[in-house]
Order: sequence, then C-alpha cells, then structure tokens
Amino acid sequence: MHTDRTHRLADLTWPEIAALADRAPIAIVPLGACEQHGPGMAMRTDTTRAEVVADVVAQRLSPQVVVTPVIPVGVSEHHMAFPGTLTLSAVTLQQVVHELVDSLYRHGWRKVFVLTGHGGNNAAVEVAVSRLRADFPDLHIAWSGITAVVSDVVADLATSQVRGHSCEIETSQAMFVDPSLVFPERLERGSADLADLDPAGQLSRAHPGIHFPQAYDVLSRTGNLGDARQASLEAGERIIQTAVERIATFLGELANLPARLPSPYPPSIHVEAS
Amino acid sequence: MHTDRTHRLADLTWPEIAALADRAPIAIVPLGACEQHGPGMAMRTDTTRAEVVADVVAQRLSPQVVVTPVIPVGVSEHHMAFPGTLTLSAVTLQQVVHELVDSLYRHGWRKVFVLTGHGGNNAAVEVAVSRLRADFPDLHIAWSGITAVVSDVVADLATSQVRGHSCEIETSQAMFVDPSLVFPERLERGSADLADLDPAGQLSRAHPGIHFPQAYDVLSRTGNLGDARQASLEAGERIIQTAVERIATFLGELANLPARLPSPYPPSIHVEAS
Amino acid sequence: MHTDRTHRLADLTWPEIAALADRAPIAIVPLGACEQHGPGMAMRTDTTRAEVVADVVAQRLSPQVVVTPVIPVGVSEHHMAFPGTLTLSAVTLQQVVHELVDSLYRHGWRKVFVLTGHGGNNAAVEVAVSRLRADFPDLHIAWSGITAVVSDVVADLATSQVRGHSCEIETSQAMFVDPSLVFPERLERGSADLADLDPAGQLSRAHPGIHFPQAYDVLSRTGNLGDARQASLEAGERIIQTAVERIATFLGELANLPARLPSPYPPSIHVEAS
Amino acid sequence: MHTDRTHRLADLTWPEIAALADRAPIAIVPLGACEQHGPGMAMRTDTTRAEVVADVVAQRLSPQVVVTPVIPVGVSEHHMAFPGTLTLSAVTLQQVVHELVDSLYRHGWRKVFVLTGHGGNNAAVEVAVSRLRADFPDLHIAWSGITAVVSDVVADLATSQVRGHSCEIETSQAMFVDPSLVFPERLERGSADLADLDPAGQLSRAHPGIHFPQAYDVLSRTGNLGDARQASLEAGERIIQTAVERIATFLGELANLPARLPSPYPPSIHVEAS
Amino acid sequence: MHTDRTHRLADLTWPEIAALADRAPIAIVPLGACEQHGPGMAMRTDTTRAEVVADVVAQRLSPQVVVTPVIPVGVSEHHMAFPGTLTLSAVTLQQVVHELVDSLYRHGWRKVFVLTGHGGNNAAVEVAVSRLRADFPDLHIAWSGITAVVSDVVADLATSQVRGHSCEIETSQAMFVDPSLVFPERLERGSADLADLDPAGQLSRAHPGIHFPQAYDVLSRTGNLGDARQASLEAGERIIQTAVERIATFLGELANLPARLPSPYPPSIHVEAS
Amino acid sequence: MHTDRTHRLADLTWPEIAALADRAPIAIVPLGACEQHGPGMAMRTDTTRAEVVADVVAQRLSPQVVVTPVIPVGVSEHHMAFPGTLTLSAVTLQQVVHELVDSLYRHGWRKVFVLTGHGGNNAAVEVAVSRLRADFPDLHIAWSGITAVVSDVVADLATSQVRGHSCEIETSQAMFVDPSLVFPERLERGSADLADLDPAGQLSRAHPGIHFPQAYDVLSRTGNLGDARQASLEAGERIIQTAVERIATFLGELANLPARLPSPYPPSIHVEAS
Repeated sequence: MHTDRTHRLADLTWPEIAALADRAPIAIVPLGACEQHGPGMAMRTDTTRAEVVADVVAQRLSPQVVVTPVIPVGVSEHHMAFPGTLTLSAVTLQQVVHELVDSLYRHGWRKVFVLTGHGGNNAAVEVAVSRLRADFPDLHIAWSGITAVVSDVVADLATSQVRGHSCEIETSQAMFVDPSLVFPERLERGSADLADLDPAGQLSRAHPGIHFPQAYDVLSRTGNLGDARQASLEAGERIIQTAVERIATFLGELANLPARLPSPYPPSIHVEAS
Repeated sequence: MHTDRTHRLADLTWPEIAALADRAPIAIVPLGACEQHGPGMAMRTDTTRAEVVADVVAQRLSPQVVVTPVIPVGVSEHHMAFPGTLTLSAVTLQQVVHELVDSLYRHGWRKVFVLTGHGGNNAAVEVAVSRLRADFPDLHIAWSGITAVVSDVVADLATSQVRGHSCEIETSQAMFVDPSLVFPERLERGSADLADLDPAGQLSRAHPGIHFPQAYDVLSRTGNLGDARQASLEAGERIIQTAVERIATFLGELANLPARLPSPYPPSIHVEAS
Repeated sequence: MHTDRTHRLADLTWPEIAALADRAPIAIVPLGACEQHGPGMAMRTDTTRAEVVADVVAQRLSPQVVVTPVIPVGVSEHHMAFPGTLTLSAVTLQQVVHELVDSLYRHGWRKVFVLTGHGGNNAAVEVAVSRLRADFPDLHIAWSGITAVVSDVVADLATSQVRGHSCEIETSQAMFVDPSLVFPERLERGSADLADLDPAGQLSRAHPGIHFPQAYDVLSRTGNLGDARQASLEAGERIIQTAVERIATFLGELANLPARLPSPYPPSIHVEAS
Repeated sequence: MHTDRTHRLADLTWPEIAALADRAPIAIVPLGACEQHGPGMAMRTDTTRAEVVADVVAQRLSPQVVVTPVIPVGVSEHHMAFPGTLTLSAVTLQQVVHELVDSLYRHGWRKVFVLTGHGGNNAAVEVAVSRLRADFPDLHIAWSGITAVVSDVVADLATSQVRGHSCEIETSQAMFVDPSLVFPERLERGSADLADLDPAGQLSRAHPGIHFPQAYDVLSRTGNLGDARQASLEAGERIIQTAVERIATFLGELANLPARLPSPYPPSIHVEAS
Repeated sequence: MHTDRTHRLADLTWPEIAALADRAPIAIVPLGACEQHGPGMAMRTDTTRAEVVADVVAQRLSPQVVVTPVIPVGVSEHHMAFPGTLTLSAVTLQQVVHELVDSLYRHGWRKVFVLTGHGGNNAAVEVAVSRLRADFPDLHIAWSGITAVVSDVVADLATSQVRGHSCEIETSQAMFVDPSLVFPERLERGSADLADLDPAGQLSRAHPGIHFPQAYDVLSRTGNLGDARQASLEAGERIIQTAVERIATFLGELANLPARLPSPYPPSIHVEAS
Repeated sequence: MHTDRTHRLADLTWPEIAALADRAPIAIVPLGACEQHGPGMAMRTDTTRAEVVADVVAQRLSPQVVVTPVIPVGVSEHHMAFPGTLTLSAVTLQQVVHELVDSLYRHGWRKVFVLTGHGGNNAAVEVAVSRLRADFPDLHIAWSGITAVVSDVVADLATSQVRGHSCEIETSQAMFVDPSLVFPERLERGSADLADLDPAGQLSRAHPGIHFPQAYDVLSRTGNLGDARQASLEAGERIIQTAVERIATFLGELANLPARLPSPYPPSIHVEAS
C-alpha cells in the first residue's frame, strides 16, 4: 500500500507548513500502542494501522489534511503480563493528546481529528476531547477508532464467537496495511469460543452493555482473542478501505463546516428560558 | 416504586455493616448528575435513576449487595450553557470513583459495580476502572449505564429520529422511577429530527463510530434531544424493569464467581512463550 | 421537621432556575460524610444534618437562596478502621468544592456559602475557599460548620468531659433533624472521660491550641467520643434552631452586601505606600 | 533573646545527627511567611517568630528535639495586594510539609511537630497532617500556631476591638523575639474598630464560627488589623514565654509517649462489632 | 545508512521478546521532537537522529540491546512561534519517560538508557531519571543527548560563532542519518554571529554557566542558530559515528556491570557515622 | 564576609518595597539544600553559599537588586542515605520556584534570576524556567549555579581526580562565606580517585556527556567526593569573588536590557515564511 508523506507535519519544514496552513484546515492526530498481539503479530500493529489509515485518508483529501506523528505507545495495562508491552496511564495519554491539540490550536487549526488504532486508548481520548471542548469553544474536534467505524463489515467477516484482539479481523487489517507486521506461520487461534474463557471471561461476554474488563493473561494463553489463522489479505483490504472511505467522507464534510463561533458562555447565563 | 433502604451503607450503623459484610460480597457505587433535562424534568433526573435502579437491584439480590450514597454531580460540561447545571471535570470524577472503591476495598469488598445514570460520566468511569484494575489485581470491578443495557428495548420504543437526552426514552424512565421528576405539561419536543440540527449536529449524527460531540446549546434550543412528549409510564416501566433484571442477573453471577487471585505480575515476566 | 424543596437546584428545571436567578443571589453548597457514628447512628448523619440545615435556612430566606445537592462523602480517613466508612482525600474534596463553586460562578452566582456537616472537611473547605478567592476576586464566599456556630449553646448542653463525635450533642441534633438516623436502644457511652482515653488521646485533649489528631479506633472502642445516651430531642432542637437562625442572619446580611468589585491587582502594585 | 543552634539540623553534620538520633526523638518543622506586616514590621515576622519559638523550645528540652530549617514563605494570597508579599498555593505548601516529614520519617523520626508562625498556613498544614497520618500509621504528628496556644493571655493583653495581623499582639511578639523586625516610629493603628471596616469586613467579624475571609487590602489601608502602636516588649515576652512553656510541656509529654504501633488496617476490617 | 530492526521492541512479537530477555539486559528509550529546523530541514530531525543512533548502537551490541519506539514529540515551547512545532510540557514528557521505564522494569529490565535527540528534553529527562532512581533502587539508569557526547568533535568542525540549532553541526548529522531530512537548496545561514542576535540574545551567549534562554523567534528570523549551508555529509558521518562508538562503549560496559542490589534505605538510617 | 541586608525582601516593610520597586528592576531567588556535606561541613552549606552570593551581588549592584528569602531545602534524594538530609521532589521544587516568581511578577518584576547553591536543583529550576517563559512572555528570566560559572577557576584549583561534593572546591567556598560551616579537624578525604569508586561509579565518570547518576552512599563512605582536607580560605575567596563578579556583571547588563515585549503568539501563526 503506497503512501506518500507530504501531508505529514514531521516531514515538512516550517515554511512549507506556513504555506500549507490556509489550504489544510484539518489535522489528524494518530495514536497507537506498543503491546502484545499474540505470537504472530508485531507489537506495533495498532501504531501502524493508525498511521496508514491517517496517511491514506490524508492522501484522498489532499491537500486539506495534515497528520501529526503517531504516538507509538498507549494505554495497555491489561496486556502488561505479556513481555515487551509498554503502557502509559490513561491520565498521561490524555495529557499528551491535550498538549498536541493545544499546539495545533496555537498554530491556527480549528478542526482536529484524533484517530486511535488501539481501543484501550478510547477513554483517555474521550476525556481529552471533553476537556479540549471546554478549553477551546471554537474548536471542532472529533475522534474514532478504526474497526469501530466498520462494525457492519466486521460482523460480516468475523468467524469467531469471541474476538477483539489479534483476531481474524485485526490480523487481516495488519496483512493489508503492512505485511511485515504478520508472521503467518506463527498465527494462532487464541480464545475464540466462550468455552475457551474462564468463568469471569465468560461473564464479561454475556451481558451486552455491561463492562467487566479482564486482563489478557486471564482471557487467553496466547494473547489472541479470536482466531488469527482465519485472517486474509482480502478481508483486510475490505475493512481498511471501507474505514478510509468513511473517515474521509466525514472529514470532507468537516472541512466544509463553517467555523465554530467562540461561545464564551461563562460567566453568564446565555440561554433564555423559553 | 417502593424501595426499602436497608442495603444502603449510609443508612446503616457500623456494627450492622460489620455483621453484613460476609453475606454482602458486592457493592454498587451509583453516580448521577445535576444537569439540565429540558423544561419538563428536574436537574437530578440521572441521580435518581441511578439511585433507584441500584436500590431495586439490591433488593432483588438481598442481602448480597450494599449500595454507597449516590454522587449527585457528574461530568456535564456540555450542558453548562443551561442555568443550574453543575459539572465536575472528568479527572475529578475519576478520582472520586477511585477513592470510593479504594475505601470499599479496604473494608474487604472484592466485587464492585459502578452504575452511572449519566452517559457523560462514562469515560471518567472507564479510566477509573482501568486504574483500579492495575492497583488492585484481586478486585472484580464492572460498570454500566442504565439505558445502554437495554438498547434493544429502547430501539423498540423510541419514536424520534434523533434522541439521547431528555427524550421520550429518558422521560419515560423518570416517570416510572419518580413521578415528581417530571412536569408533564411542560414537556417539549426538542431537536428530534436531523433537520432540527445545525450542520455540525447533523454531521455528528451521520457517521456511526465517529464521535463528534456537540454542546447541548448548539444541538437544541430547549435542551431536549428527542421528543419528551412521547414519554409514557408504561415505556418507563419496561425499560427500568428490564435494566434491573439484566443488571441483577449479572450481579448474581458475579456474586458466585470465585475470588480473583492476586496476580502481582510486576516485576516479573510471568507468561511463558508458547 | 418539614422541608419543602423548591430552593433545591436539583429539583428544579433549568427555565425555573433561569427565572429564579435574579431573586436568589445566594447559593449554599452543603457537604456531608459517610462515616461511622457509633453503634446507634447511621453513617449519613453528617450528610443529613448539612442538608436539613441548608434546607431550613433556604426556606427562611426564600426565595433568596438556592441549595446544591449535598455531597454525601467527605474526608473521613480517621474513621476508616470502622466498617463502611468511605473517605475522599482532602485534595479531592477540595477539588470537588472548587468545581461546584466554579459552576455556580459561571451561572452568575457571586455569593456562595459552603456548609459542612462534618468537621473533618474543614481544612479541605478552607483550602478550596482560599483558592476560589484568588481565582474569582469578585466572589463573596463564606463557610461554616453547624456545631461550630453554636459553641456557646453546646457548652451549656454538653454533659461529657470528652466529646466531639456521636456524642450527646451530635446525637441530639440527629434526633431532631431526622429521627430515622438514631437507634435509641443502641446508643452507647463511648470515651467520655479523659480516663477513657489512652495516653496519646489524653495528651491530645490536654493542650488547647495544639492539634494532635488521633484515629478513632484508638480513641474509642465504640466510635463514640462522648455519651450518646444523654442526647435529647429538646437539646437537638435548640442546637439546630439556633444554628439555623445564626446562619440565616448571616446570609440575610450577605444578600444585602454590595457586589464585590473585581480587584484584578495582578500584575500591578495597586496599593500605594502611605 | 539568646539562641544557640546545636539542635538545628541544618547546622549539624551527618555523623552528629546519626549520633544524636537516639536521644532526639522529636523533630520540629517550623513554617513562616514572607508577607506584609504593615508599615512598621518586616516581611519575615512570621518566619522569625516560628524560628525563635522552635529554637527556645528545643533548648528547653535539649537534647530531645531537633529543628528543621524554617520555610520562609507560606500561603499569603490574601496579602498579595501589598508589595513584596510572596505566596505559595496551599497545595504546594501541603506538599512541601509532606515531603519534609517524609524525609524525617525515612531517617527514623516517629514524633514530629509542625509549628507555623503564620495562620494562613493552617489549612495546608492540617491537610498535610491528615495525609501523613494515613501514609504513616506509626507516626505521632502534631501541630500548632503560636498565638493560638496562648489565646487566654492574648485576650488579657489585647486593646483593639478588631485585631489579628500586625496588631498590638503580633507586634509585641516581634519586639521580643527580634527587635530588628520592628520600626517603632513607623508603627500604625490600622483597622482596629469595627467601624474601620467596610460592610463585608464588618460582616466577617460579626458571626463567630462563620468564616468569611477578606483580602487585607479591603480590610485595612495600612495592612494592620489592630493597633501596632499599643505593642510592648513586656507583652511580647509574656506571650512568647507562655507559648514556649506550653509547647515545651506538650513536647516533653510527647517524648515520653510509647511508640505508636503500626496499625495497617487496610485492607481488612479490624474493628469488631460490639 | 543501513539499519535492521530486529532489536526494536515494536517490531517483535511477545514470544520473541520473552526469548530475547535473558540475552538483552539493556533497553534504550529514544526521544525526539517535532519542531522547526529552519527552512531546510524537516520537523522530525531530532526524532530521526535519536532513532538512527539507537538503532546503530543496538546493532553494534546485538543482541544485548532492545530499543523502544521513539517518542516523536518533545519539549519545544521555545520553537512554538514557528508553524507546525508541537510541544509537550516538561511535566508531561517526564511522566511519559517514567511510565515507559516503569513498563520495562516490570518486564525485568534493570539497565535502561534514555537517548534524547533534542536538548530541550534534557531537564525533563533528568527529573524523570531522578525520580526513577528513587522509585527503583535496583535500576541502573543513564541518559545522554547525541551532540553532547561528541563536544570535542563538534568544536573541531563548527564554523559559526553562534550555533546550536539547525546549524552546520546538526544539519551535517541529518544528512548522514537520513538524507531525506535535508533540502540542500533551501538551507540558510541563520543567526551565526553574535552581531546577528538582539541584545538579550547576545547577553545569553556572553556568560558561560549562566542560563538565559530565549525563544527562537527572537533569536533568529529563519529558526537557524548557526549556518546550515556549511554542513557536509562527511562532518555528519564523523559526528554520528563517534557518538555511536562512545555510547556503544558505555553500554557495553554497562552490560557487564553487576546488578545493583536493592538498597531500600527507607525507613532506616543505614549509613553509620564513621 | 560582611553583608548588609537592606536588599532582602524579607527584612523590608511593604512601603519600603513599594518605594524601592522603580529602582530595583531585578529580583534574585536563591535556592539551597539541607543535605549531608561529609563529616566536616554543616547540612546548610548550599543554602548559605547561595544566600551569601546573592547578598554580595545585590550589594554590588545596589539598589538595583532585591533578594527573596533562600529556600533551605532542595532536591537531595541521592543523599538520603545519610542522616538528616531532607529532600523535596523535583516536581515540588519546580512548583515552589514557579510560585515565587509568579508572586514577583504580580508585583511588577520583569527580570528575575534564580541562583541555586545546589546542583541537584538544576533540572527542577530548568523546568520551572521553561514553564515560566511560556506563562509570562514578557519576563526576562535567567538562572545559574555558583561553581558552574567559575569552572575555569575550579579547574585551576582542584586537586582531586574525582570531586564534586564536599570536595576541596566546595569546602573552600564554605570557609570563605561562613567559617562556622566548616569543622576543619573533621574534614576527610572521600572518594577522590577513580580507584575509590565502585565499578558503577567509575563508569559514571568515564564518559563525558553521558549521565549515569549514582547515590552518594554508593559513591563514598563519608559522603565526600573529592578531598576536603585540601580546602583553603584563599581558594574559597577566589572562587566566590569571581562568581560574584561574573554574576554581577551579567545582572548589570540584564538591568540595562530593554523590557521584553509581550509576544502572545498563541493562537496565531506570527512568523511568516521567508
């Protein structure tokens, strides 16, 4: 998958960025992780997925989008029992996101999109976004994961009863975005049926809407949740291309949105009773 | 709706709690909000919904569950343009939840359920839960909202294209849990169709999986998202009773789970390569 | 004791609050605790005392005062050896108070009174008030406990040499504000004479002006400091009614104070040498 | 007033401290301020009062007490309108106190006394002490101000209706502990009667037990609250000598207290119901 | 410059890391920046320099060293006037470094080297290292920049009187580690003589040992401090190869150091007076 | 060495400071430490050195400079194994420095110099300075140590191969600034040759530019690094007088610098591409 990098802030010089600013109203802030992805995939899988999706989206919308450097570690406490996983606390990641967006804001960006390749970052991102909205009332800020924007496609392609990490869905994506992430001969079926889980793991899967998070060393001997052996390049292409298309569509519409007027409601009561 | 309060920690004396401890392995921590709910509902709607659901669940499972006092403010920055709304930062609410659960842990509880009546608290709760799991490896901790555990029922009952706050679904719940929350003659239809939203609001609703949060004063003149006039006591009863049943079922199974063994994997590498 | 609740922010709708704002210049922020009160009183004793005093004061001054929802946990580390006690750190409570008053300020309130039913919250409140005064120079902010404003009455009514928690004075108040707080047959005499204390406890009581705080499990086998059996409804009525009268008098005068002009002395030297 | 300094940690070498440790079970941590004290007294008045009282107490009890270096700034936000005042936030001072006591604890001290010469530090000290008690259950920690331990003497000597800062009482103390603090010809009567205060200041003084703190530039044109011209060396000697005697008596008894046993009640319920 | 990546944690799978752990006692944590480097160099210059040096050092010492993913943003407040610069606060970067090293420690690493490509990160790294040493007494932790370890070589090669950012020295390094970082035709001479600086800038350079930091938009119109046009591939090769050699030599010796024994001196006095 | 104290803020009254402000554009903030200095020097050595140098510099430049009270504790974790050492965390010291300078700024000072007598404070000071520059764009802020500004003199006078703490250089300074700091008969040679160090200590000294900090109880049995017995009053006089002269020269030039214009570049892009 070819990506040119001229939309990447880190590859540009400051006069190029100054010249680009008027034509590039949107900045994407990609977030990754360095965490175990089972015996058949590299620790950087989430980082690379975020980076590639951000790149391709930016290419589609060129020159309207710039991309900041991907943050290569995230909130991965639940994987820490597996060697090599690195984790930030949610509070620290939240602060990192805040400061990156604050920097962009100071340079004039008013439309920012945070793209996380790792679901474990979601709560930190949501808190950061909430705080950024309070601090910068004239900022349009949005965020998403990758798999979450194509849940219909995923439902169509998934083969395991239990999945969600280094499963057939994620492994397929990795095959497509960067084949060097995947070691096909080492792919394993992890905990892929409810019966593979211990009682707490089963309970955590049995009640939609109730969150009962489990550490991955309890959930799975291999670190996989799902069956990585069922992955395919074709499935990966369909997932990623659809995600790219949907995010690009959203960002294209965001680019056309009028600027948000600063709404400094504090300290006054500015909504009248009807 | 009748609730006796003998499972409420705050109503008990310490010797009663000491006597109860062996038989009550689970503690529920309910969270609310003090925020605008349109012209026809009281600010404490989320607080009361959380409190009543917690009470009824505890009654069902009596004496296995105790309930801590509901926290009557939450993360409501997005409603601050409406008079009387109070808000905590997500960081502060996260800390409050951490300290409440830490207190319970010190008294011996190893199974805790956080129940939030307000979706705006979700990210703070998720961050708190993530941190609590790292700090207390032998703690079983789970959490949910109310409406989120009955999304199938809600889909069946909803009448508005756009909804989610002080809509027919939430107003129905309020009618059932505490009729004094609702002023029927003042209920209004807020922004209930996509056409009622401004372009940013429409965009925020058009892309599933992409989060583009909006302040409520931008989304709706009245503070309602949906049509509160379509609410009914019957719908509220069905929603709440189903939520209670599902949460009680989960907690009943949680009560029967074996204790989680402390898994102090730091500082060692305790998962062997396969 | 009858209390209507129309001054309670949480019971109102936002248009009602908008309509009330001009006539209600003062907001009371009540704070409680969830902590042991000996074998004869409920954990929520301080919460209920704060809530009731705030309600009755607000009724006396109606419609000049609104009341925020009482925070039902406080700083109770020194009671944590007794089952069921919940505690916030002082730093967290301080932050909660700051954010509640900040919310009120954003809605236009410039006169705020923090009322704590629990003495363990005092230092956190004082720190919060100090910071709020620096942040909002045009805010009039005041605070008190309950018992502390009637120390002369208390001196007249007390029967124990050592007292201060779940003693005859506090139990009397509980009997008056909410009889369901008290289980008369279980009331006990705790450590009520100096001779009942261990040497550290005795030392802590022997030097006025020197603070040598002790955990309650060291001070008292029952959790009482004083003799709860000497409590009476009559004493409680006299204490509470006097406290209400004094706080209401203060707030009535506060309501009539001219607005504090913002005094943004930073960054200049605005006081001239005489 | 003569003070030798051999009890001062900062004047000793580490082998001297190692040799002293067994015989000096108590450490005093003095706290001061750098804040305006009216036109006739130096900014360091509180610092010097704390330092001298700590020194003299240590001499009386020699060799049982060591003294840490006095912290020469405190929480003085309310004096910031007067040139030269320096202030720490309460949170920062609290942290400083925590870390100083933590250092002493690591060297083996289990009996620590914090002595503040500035009342504005009280809440920060109280919060620090509360946290230290939770962190170090086998630590005996106590604290006081200076004037507060001799309130009976002060009541006897005071001449102003309104006082409390750079008044006759504090100026007398300064004259005794270090005459170079006071410039007798520049001493002024500040706001010394209720009639000298503005309405907010009057209200703040009219209701015992209710705290309504005011910035000093609002309270007083000169920065004095009381009448510094009524100060005398004799009054200062009586106040300081009495304070020294009382604090020394307390610390002498503290030195004889048995060690506090570590009481690691978390995570268990260690108090049995009666 | 060829680099294989098998020592990079992020490129490995967890079983590979588990298998490697015994043979790789050292982890390098590289830190970069995303900040202006004048009109002729990309924002990621510091990131790439850190990453390449870490890679080559790891190759030399293979398999004794693993490398964590480079953090692509740093403390760059002083460059924020130039478009596209991103900055973290020093407190946040310090926290990120702490959490990365903490993660490595939990997986068993006891020898960690932080390598920063950006001098603006130094103070944050030093604070992090100081805290890590206190938290993990059995950890060997060291750190350096790149240019700072070859100051003798730099003195030999430099041509400008004033230099230090995007000068001939840094540009030469960039040419060698990754030619795509440099746009030769756009390289400029920035402020390269004292006469090019404003009076504050001149003062900041005139007193060795005194730090008087200046924002780069004040120091230089182009963002260069020095003369980027004097850069050469040969100079870059000499600088980088020497830095690699020296760091590799240090790490080789570090690998052979005996493990540091945990020295849990708190809470006791463990050094005896001589 | 004689020092008068009229430039010391803490010794002045507020009207004197108000009168002085126009003529004293510079404030010095001295920082010390309370840490072991071997068997022959007092714990307060760094504090006194900072205080005296600040005083003498201020006298030279009188009346252009005021001096705040010296902070008598610093970041001394690495000395905590020696009895009596007190330490602040780097984060806390950083906050203290920030708040002191913030106070000065609010009173109108725009030129501030932080002078640390203890090298362990450097990173905290550097972080504080970086944050202060971002917060107050119109502030000129500079900092230094003492020994670091005379490294050429030190190289000339030093006799030990290994030195840096309580060595001949520091002891000489102490003899000159305050003879009561030094106990000549107890001075010792500590670790003064590489051969006196353990392998980690040797490694830490062998690679210029690489930082591998060691706790002092590992480096030296006595706490000295160098040979205190080689100290002399004459060396101390030369070091201190030279440092004073250089710092005074710098501050004299700083006093003459034009005011820094506020450069509120956020939120705009204010540097144009060339």
